[in-house]
Amino acid sequence: MENSGHQLRCTGCGRVSEQRELKADFRCPDCGDLYEVVYPSWSAGFAAAEEKKPNASALRWLWKERCSSNEEADQSGVWRFRELLHILRDEKNIVSLREGNTPLYSLRRTARSTGIAKLYAKHQGMNPTGSFKDTGMTAALSVAYELGYEWVACASTGNTSAAMAAYAARAGMRSLVLIPQGKIAWGKLSQAIDYGALTIQLRTDFDGCVRVLAEIVRRAPVYLLNSVNPYRLEGQKTPALEIAEALEWEVPDHVIVPGGNLANSSALGKAFLEMKHLGLTARLPKISVIQAEGANPLYRAMRENGGEALYPVEAHTRASAIRIGNPASWKKAVRVIRETGGWCEQASEAEIALAKAEIGEEGIGCEPASAVTLAGLKKLVREGKVQSQETVVLLLTGHTLKDSDYTIAYHRGDLLRPDEVGALRTEIEVTRRNAVEMDASADLVLRELERAKER
Amino acid sequence: MENSGHQLRCTGCGRVSEQRELKADFRCPDCGDLYEVVYPSWSAGFAAAEEKKPNASALRWLWKERCSSNEEADQSGVWRFRELLHILRDEKNIVSLREGNTPLYSLRRTARSTGIAKLYAKHQGMNPTGSFKDTGMTAALSVAYELGYEWVACASTGNTSAAMAAYAARAGMRSLVLIPQGKIAWGKLSQAIDYGALTIQLRTDFDGCVRVLAEIVRRAPVYLLNSVNPYRLEGQKTPALEIAEALEWEVPDHVIVPGGNLANSSALGKAFLEMKHLGLTARLPKISVIQAEGANPLYRAMRENGGEALYPVEAHTRASAIRIGNPASWKKAVRVIRETGGWCEQASEAEIALAKAEIGEEGIGCEPASAVTLAGLKKLVREGKVQSQETVVLLLTGHTLKDSDYTIAYHRGDLLRPDEVGALRTEIEVTRRNAVEMDASADLVLRELERAKER
Repeated sequence: MENSGHQLRCTGCGRVSEQRELKADFRCPDCGDLYEVVYPSWSAGFAAAEEKKPNASALRWLWKERCSSNEEADQSGVWRFRELLHILRDEKNIVSLREGNTPLYSLRRTARSTGIAKLYAKHQGMNPTGSFKDTGMTAALSVAYELGYEWVACASTGNTSAAMAAYAARAGMRSLVLIPQGKIAWGKLSQAIDYGALTIQLRTDFDGCVRVLAEIVRRAPVYLLNSVNPYRLEGQKTPALEIAEALEWEVPDHVIVPGGNLANSSALGKAFLEMKHLGLTARLPKISVIQAEGANPLYRAMRENGGEALYPVEAHTRASAIRIGNPASWKKAVRVIRETGGWCEQASEAEIALAKAEIGEEGIGCEPASAVTLAGLKKLVREGKVQSQETVVLLLTGHTLKDSDYTIAYHRGDLLRPDEVGALRTEIEVTRRNAVEMDASADLVLRELERAKER
Repeated sequence: MENSGHQLRCTGCGRVSEQRELKADFRCPDCGDLYEVVYPSWSAGFAAAEEKKPNASALRWLWKERCSSNEEADQSGVWRFRELLHILRDEKNIVSLREGNTPLYSLRRTARSTGIAKLYAKHQGMNPTGSFKDTGMTAALSVAYELGYEWVACASTGNTSAAMAAYAARAGMRSLVLIPQGKIAWGKLSQAIDYGALTIQLRTDFDGCVRVLAEIVRRAPVYLLNSVNPYRLEGQKTPALEIAEALEWEVPDHVIVPGGNLANSSALGKAFLEMKHLGLTARLPKISVIQAEGANPLYRAMRENGGEALYPVEAHTRASAIRIGNPASWKKAVRVIRETGGWCEQASEAEIALAKAEIGEEGIGCEPASAVTLAGLKKLVREGKVQSQETVVLLLTGHTLKDSDYTIAYHRGDLLRPDEVGALRTEIEVTRRNAVEMDASADLVLRELERAKER
């Protein structure tokens, strides 16, 4: 079979394409919209085209069994679910770094403060390169490898370039990162460089980089791994499978995700819809998307026109991973929010910072973009949209090490302006722990310990 | 049983103590040496004191089965081996962040360049806080929790404080980090602060901090989690079990570890000795320790007096995690090198930097201290101590995100002075990839791609 049982279908006009046509920019030639992966055989009942025709119970058992295997594909938290990722012709082309299988932590302290007893964090920052991008990258890069590409490329200065460079290196392939000059976050780029990527600063802005990249993938055999690549979303489905599995195939009432480029909400929504369709689960969770106030185009679209039209904004937030004013996957995200009955909320800079500190106090470090989920949950609880007896999963997308400057700035008191703190002042003071300075005296240190106990 | 079947025995004079006596500084009151955990029942055959008396095959099966369990203790790569960590009275006191179960990567490219076909990297930087310290911290902090402490403490500015703070927060306990003033590496401390630790800068040096800490744990109910704590080594045994399990219980011929405070070599050696004693494995690997040239007290001791006496050095290396001039566990490490037939080697700053870049080009990011293992392997191969048909495992101790400044400095050409580079100049130029700058033109980028292909 040419494409291993899947098709690419335009989310705008429904045009169906075969994989090989799409080596350029992954946009529909008819309407310009994005593609998604679909599995035609599933419409006639799952795995009609398969020889073994496994049913839902058999799949659940098989996926768990693979956790005890020493095989590389089985040890991946993405590829052990490969029956729902029919995107390769041959499993030997899997390029893996042992991604996925991330922890679902119960949040005990935050459960008390929010009044949600069954509150969990699914920590995608525990992936090999420290962000959720790895689950999507193992999928899309394996496709590139199977198609015989030597080079892959993206325009990014953050988590995407790190993941792409790592998987390309793992496959023995080469990677190209285009960056707008002067906008380099060296800390975030350090990983891509460490993994051997060729990083080129262009004298232009981000959109200029995207334009140059589009020309490059048309003219040279370079495979595009920006978020328009539909195979990335197939890999990013798997956290949903892991969540359901960890909860014994009872889906949570709510899954709350950060909203930047909106690929996460799209991928998780697709996964929960497919699981229900295949009889793996009985119902859908409500999927809600939380944006930063300064980068809230979806929030505005939902509020102003019910998600019919999205107007790009100039994005400003210290949560750099969701600093996106023109999200690629917004239509997919709107569909997921509608189909699951979720909401879109926004959080202020102070709410994000406080939420990150609260998650940290659970012993769980995340980058600021991840913490919008807790900030958003608090609002949904106040608005009565999330009830105290419901089960809630927050999706954390990046590791705290991805942005240590942010953590330090918060705890030294340099992050927030007085006007940003507002009513949260007292709570923020409690979570902030400055490094205290004193003479080397046990008496003084013991006195400080006593003081800390009162906090 | 008071202490769940284990004893603490002084590694110097053999004095045996019960746990409760040791709440102060974990030094033998008779001879001042360190303690280690021993299991008296094992000397009369494993688990003589157990009801079920599992044998080696049953243990292997049980540990694999737990990989498919949803129980918190089973999902930990430390506690799923709890039959070899009899340090708690009650399993409900386990404090876990889903540590361990780290990947054993095959190093394909480096296998070719070193001529070692069966070359692996065990990546302990994939633990929850990004370093190997988590495996030891889950063990020792669980003991502190079981003993009822509210506060734990250490003197550290690096990976130890991050791990301690995370596990303390997870347990709902409080943590204290003492730091010498002016020696703060904010990047490394950011995690401890994020996890809610109280960090106090003292107007003294590191030894001064250790002295104040010793007084604090004598005077107040604060549990000491510096590396002298013998329970940390029990947790740090488990990567050895994972390595053996991944290789189907055939131990590798060589395990190569970075040498800083020397707890790693001690713990892994203990694990391999115990596994052989219990019939889980048939033989021992040679365990070799690699130090940085500028922080090489063990290397000198082995060379100058066969490891009989260690003279502290003033440590200088950019590999900060092994920048230790007076390693606490040096006697244990000497014993392990002797008993397993391994060696101690050293690596220059340029060799470390090059090795880190080579590991990065495999898609595997580590902090510089981890890369001494590859630099050391190259020397052991050249000296004929490691043969091409042998199986070699390098222990990587920290994630590349722990020290992104190092990566950037290397790839920008700012890290090494010309006199440090020496004969490695050409190799270093090949692994260094500077960020190229150019106008936003696809023609120019495509030309750069062609140039990169030739490298």
